[in-house]
Parts: sequence; C-alpha cells; structure tokens
Amino acid sequence: MAAASQHRYFAETIAIGSELLVGGRSDSNSLFIADTLASIGIKVRFKSIVGDDKSDIAHVLKTAGRRAGIVIMTGGLGPTVDDCTRESVASVTGFRLARHKEAFESMRARLAQWGRTPNKKQLRQALIPSTATVLPNPVGSASGFAIIWRGTHLIALPGVPSEMKAMMEQSVVPLLAEQLDRSKDARPHPITRLIFHTWGLPESDVDAKLKGLIPKRTPVALGLLASPTGVLVSLTTKEDGHLKKGTLTSLAEEVRARLGEWIYAEGQNSIEQVVGRLLREQGRTVSVAESCTGGLIGQRLTQVPGSSAYVDRVAVCYSNRAKMEMLGVSEKLLEDHGAVSQEVAAAMAKGMRERADVSVALSVTGIAGPGGGTENKPIGLVYIGLAGGGDDVVTKEFRFHGDRSVIRQRAAQAALDMLRRWLVSRGTT
Amino acid sequence: MAAASQHRYFAETIAIGSELLVGGRSDSNSLFIADTLASIGIKVRFKSIVGDDKSDIAHVLKTAGRRAGIVIMTGGLGPTVDDCTRESVASVTGFRLARHKEAFESMRARLAQWGRTPNKKQLRQALIPSTATVLPNPVGSASGFAIIWRGTHLIALPGVPSEMKAMMEQSVVPLLAEQLDRSKDARPHPITRLIFHTWGLPESDVDAKLKGLIPKRTPVALGLLASPTGVLVSLTTKEDGHLKKGTLTSLAEEVRARLGEWIYAEGQNSIEQVVGRLLREQGRTVSVAESCTGGLIGQRLTQVPGSSAYVDRVAVCYSNRAKMEMLGVSEKLLEDHGAVSQEVAAAMAKGMRERADVSVALSVTGIAGPGGGTENKPIGLVYIGLAGGGDDVVTKEFRFHGDRSVIRQRAAQAALDMLRRWLVSRGTT
Repeated sequence: MAAASQHRYFAETIAIGSELLVGGRSDSNSLFIADTLASIGIKVRFKSIVGDDKSDIAHVLKTAGRRAGIVIMTGGLGPTVDDCTRESVASVTGFRLARHKEAFESMRARLAQWGRTPNKKQLRQALIPSTATVLPNPVGSASGFAIIWRGTHLIALPGVPSEMKAMMEQSVVPLLAEQLDRSKDARPHPITRLIFHTWGLPESDVDAKLKGLIPKRTPVALGLLASPTGVLVSLTTKEDGHLKKGTLTSLAEEVRARLGEWIYAEGQNSIEQVVGRLLREQGRTVSVAESCTGGLIGQRLTQVPGSSAYVDRVAVCYSNRAKMEMLGVSEKLLEDHGAVSQEVAAAMAKGMRERADVSVALSVTGIAGPGGGTENKPIGLVYIGLAGGGDDVVTKEFRFHGDRSVIRQRAAQAALDMLRRWLVSRGTT
Repeated sequence: MAAASQHRYFAETIAIGSELLVGGRSDSNSLFIADTLASIGIKVRFKSIVGDDKSDIAHVLKTAGRRAGIVIMTGGLGPTVDDCTRESVASVTGFRLARHKEAFESMRARLAQWGRTPNKKQLRQALIPSTATVLPNPVGSASGFAIIWRGTHLIALPGVPSEMKAMMEQSVVPLLAEQLDRSKDARPHPITRLIFHTWGLPESDVDAKLKGLIPKRTPVALGLLASPTGVLVSLTTKEDGHLKKGTLTSLAEEVRARLGEWIYAEGQNSIEQVVGRLLREQGRTVSVAESCTGGLIGQRLTQVPGSSAYVDRVAVCYSNRAKMEMLGVSEKLLEDHGAVSQEVAAAMAKGMRERADVSVALSVTGIAGPGGGTENKPIGLVYIGLAGGGDDVVTKEFRFHGDRSVIRQRAAQAALDMLRRWLVSRGTT
C-alpha cells in the first residue's frame, strides 16, 4: 500500500447495481470519473462493482475505505427497494440516516417541474447520513452526498450517467479541490494524459517506432492500446517524481515526429470529427457508397453534430441491382470482376461522385463473413475507392482479420482514413 | 459474508490492465464470464478492476480470495513488462513460477503457425505457478492457468475477448463442473435468467403491468433495465430457495401475456435479428430510406450474418436534393411541408419501395439535434414511414428525448419495431 501522504490522492470507484454483474451492462461511469479526477491530480487505482445487496456493498465499502483516500460510489440512490446505497453507508459508518431538508426540497422542486409530487418511495431519496454534505442533482431527483469517514472521503452519486457527470463537475471536483487546498500536504500535480490515435500500423510497428522514447527516470508512462479502430498511444505523467517543464511537450512532439501521418487524431477526437473539420474548413462535401459496411461509415460521419453541412448522401448497395441502379455500375463489370473487386470499387466511387455532385466520394466493397468467402476472395478481403474529381479514382486492397463486426469496423476506419489523407494532401481550396 | 457451504459457489472477477482504469475501455469480459458461470450455478458477486501494478493486483487478489470460492482474473498474461499477473499470483500464493513444458510448446506451435519464433519476452508467457493446471489457449499464444489456494480456485485468463471466451468454454467450465461434481455439497442449481426485450412503453408502465407478478417467497427476482433501445425485463432464479418445477415457465408465460406485443425479442436476440428471421421466413425483402439516423438502421440490419438475403439497399438522404434524386420526393412536397414531416416520410418510404422493388420499405426523417430545432419542429421530432405494397403507407410521429446519439438510437429502434409489427401482422405469404 502507498504511504499515508499519498493515500489521500488515490481513489476507488464503486459501481452499484445488479445489472452490472450479470447480463446487463458494463460500468462506463468509472471511466468518466477517473478522467475527471486525474485533472485534479487524483488517480483512480481500484474499481469495484457490486450488486444491489446491502451486506456486499458494505463489504466493498470497508475494503475501499481502507485502501483509498477518496471513494466515489455510483448507483443505488433511486426510489426502489433495490436501492440501498444510503443504508449501506449508514451501516458501515455508523452515521444515522435522516430526512434532509435541502435534499427533500430539491427533489420536490424537480418532480414539480415534471408535474408530479413525491410518492412514499421517493421520500427515501431525501434520506442522507447525518454530518453529510448534500450534493445537489441539477438533472434528476436524487441528491448525492459526501462524508468523511476515518479520513476517507465517501461520495455517493446517482448511476444515471448524465446526473453523475453533472454532479462530478459541479460539486465533486470543487469539493475535493477545496479539501486538497486546505490540506497540509503539497497539492498534487494534475495527471496529464496525452492521446494519439493511429491507424494502419500493427501494434508491434508502433512499438518499434517509439522505442527508447522516454528517457530513464522521466516520470512519464508510455501506453499502447490496440483495437479495431487502430492503436492508441498515450503519454501519462506519473503522480510521483518531478517532471521538468516542457518535457511532456517535447515528448509529444517526438511522438508526432516518429508516427507522422499515421496519427489521425489526438485527444478525444474521432476520425469522423477530424474528417468533418477538414471538409468544413475546405468547403468540401462527401458522399459514400457502401456495401459490406452496410451504413457504418454513414452512421459514423453523421453522428458528428452539424455533419449535414458536408454529408450529402450515402448509398448502401447490398444487391448487385442496387449497385447498378444507385451508382451506375455496369452489369458487365460486375460479371467480369465480381462485386468484390478493385474495378467495382472504382466504379462505385466514380458513380457516386458524379450522381451526388460532391467534392469527393468513398466506396467500400468486401466480404465481411462469416459466409461468402472463397479461395480467391477470402473473408476479410475489402476494396476501398476514392473519387476526388476528374478521372482521379484511387483504390486500395485490404485483407482484414477478425469476425464480421471487426472486419466491418476496420473497413470503415480504413475508408475514413483514406478520406482524411486525401483531404490533408489537398489542403484548403 | 455467506456461509461456508455457499462461499464456494460465489465468484469474483478481476480485470487487470491500466487501460481499464483511465481513459481507455470498460471491462466487458466480466459480463461474458458472469453469464457463463451462471449456467453452471455459480454467481458472480463482486467484480474488481485494477491496473498493471504488482502490489495492487496482489491486494485485490487477497481480498477476492477471502470472499469468493472462485476468482477469475483476465489480462496481464502478455509478453510485455507491464504484464505481471503471473508474478502477482506467485507472490500472493507462494507458488514458484517455472517454465511449463506444455505452455511453452503450445506457444511455440502457435507462433510457428504465424511464421514466428518466440523471442525472449514471449518466453515469459510459458512461466506458470507450480502445481497449477495449464489452460490451453486455442486462439492465441498465452496459456492460462488454474490453481487452488486456501480452498479458492484462482483462474488466470488472457484479456483478449476471443481468447478468454474460448478458454472459458473449453477449459474453465469443464474444470469447475468437475470440481463441483466431486465436492460433497449438493451440486448448485444453474442460475436461470430469462430476458424479455420491450420497446415503446416507459419503464414505469412496464413496472405497473408486471405488478404483483412474483408470488411471495418464490425465489425469482424480477429486474427492469431501461436503455435507449427499450426496457429489458429479466426473471432470474435465486441461488437459495427451492423453485418448484414449472414455476419459471409459468412466470415467463405471464410476462408474455402481460406485455404482449410490446415484447420484441427474448434472450440474446436483437430486434435486427428478429426482423431478419421474419423477413427470411416470409421470403420478403427490405430497403430503408434514412435521414437523421444517417445509416444506423442499415448498419444494424446488415450486422446480422446472411442479411444480404433480404436487405436490398439503404439510401441515406442527408440533403433535400438526395431525397429528390434517390427517392423521387417532389420539390414541392419538401417546400410545402419541410423535410421533417409526415408527408415527406410517406413519400420517402413509397419512393424507396418503388425504386428498390422490395416487399417493404422503411423511412425516417427527423431532427436529432443539437442544432436545427424550432418551436414547431423541436429536437427529437421524428417521422417514420412504412410502405408495404399498393398505396398502403403508414406513418407515425415520435417525440424523443435525449442527446443526438440517444435520439438517433431511439429513432432506429422505433423504425425496426414498426417493421417487426408489420411483418408479424402479415405472417407468412
């Protein structure tokens, strides 16, 4: 375990809810909490998940209280009998539950907005452990609370992500920052985490390119994380050790220099956001002709707010007839080369660009599996085309590994990256 | 804590990896593990997540070993210095690490398949605690292992989902089932979990319809879980208490009777799978004209293997011009009623059905936000159309709440449910 002086800057999250244990959903709240706490120098070191069971919650809470200076619980603050976070906290800490005026009034006001009055069950939501600070809920009806127990901050928040997020930002961060300021210890350095998203290089190649990047005794950790959308590279400052001013900036510069064009985005940006920004800046428009990706590229491009400014249309042509009718691909081309071919990818992109009259058109045709593969055209074979004006049509062949979903994700990512590289090479019109 | 005789049937999962703590990804392996263990009567009661830190892993492992009879670790078995699961297990249990012949040979064989020979780092993957049973990895190069420590089964698996899943099914389930058979205690009953997916009713209405469903002292738990794709209803048998034969079946019948047409699927089925099966059975084909959903409906329909048998095409018409050119919506209609209107939804569905010559066409037009809302046509207003032959076009108006992503998800779900209801009402041709 860490020394006492560090202990206060380590956090544990506890996600409460039986649906998180089996068959239901994974805990995503803790990722937001960890990112938010890192920004004020607090590192999440353990995460626990437990069902709606009073004694199990109590067990987890005791363990967390022993090893972390800050414990953030989410969930179990609702009005149903399942919700027993407040009772568990009361039983572990010995603080009695009492109806809290402020929590009650804010719940009543919130329900009144929705044209309702609190029922008997909902009244439980105003029960707060004595000595606790109430954390107002600007979005929903359940207040959160914070208490100090044996030197550890115990904080309880609702499990609804929008409520949890608002309360983290509006209440928890200011509260903890104030406590840190008051403490005799030196204020911890914010943990900085720089992220670089790459596409097109296997993890081992990214690793090789970054070899020896971090000089010895420099308190920065290099992380690599592979997924179907590429390899994520991270530089994270360590909470111990002194980082010289400018070190992180020059390490980031070095990452950019070594990985160059393979980096498609930094920070929280996705490739569809990067491509969207480039299209907007350049005043260009795009259309997409998809086959095996089935709408995934369109879905990703259009999930960016404001994308209607540059996305004109998407055609998902699953049948050969659709390829002919929607894109003008000739029957002969389909017969001669097959739907999954360089030639058809080129014709799809060209046909789409002409019909939609956009600056640039993308096309994808491939075999996502599990059926449809042959010896010559195996599962994972994908052709991507890009038509950018005149007779200028570029095509590229890919051979992806993975199941249907992974192949579709990789194909969509490859197509968006081809568009990104084309836009970067064109620059502003 | 549970009595000693129960303790052996409770499990804890430990997901190991710093990327699971901050900024990276959430642990989804534990959901699969929990479902798989439930099928042999073992309940996951705690889940822990910890970074790549030897002493933190050791701490979590000790806690888990005290409270659970079965501990399943995932991650930290790779070849890099970050991977320290085996060292942590050795330090906690006192079992020495030694190169294991079987693990080494299987790694060498796997790498040879890929045309590689093990390097120095990879040799670490053949280190296994003494007395451990090696669990072969049929997909990747890292073997897992199982040991018994102070009466608790400690099982270590790789974190790569495909490897973890294969090893759970091929090694862990048979191993635990054999141990349970050998034990003096009665074999636990499999935990059965029946799932019903509903769409179209708010959670409070589902709750009201199911009021009083479970008779007192019946060891079955009713669960409700709301998400953008509807309310999931579950019936889960409790591990304690005796369930009379036929009780669960009749409870399931009662759920079906009370929720009726609102149930769109059961078990692990998604609405796109249900719709796909109906289309196949009825020999019907479908095309979709999307606007605000941007390809999401197409993407969902086509993620089902074999969907090329019934999906003909999808047109994502983001611009008005695309609606005219791809679907034949008249300029006058767009001017008179606006793109987000009942009339345009109907024209989109009708135009798509005629052009694609399919059995049925769906259309969606709406305002997903965050921009584009007006007083008359607020964010969340969505029209869905369905053209099923002749002049038969049905349209429906929806007013969804939530952010851009949630509105798009709800709109896609509503459209697929409209298609499902239409197919159910038509039956086999």
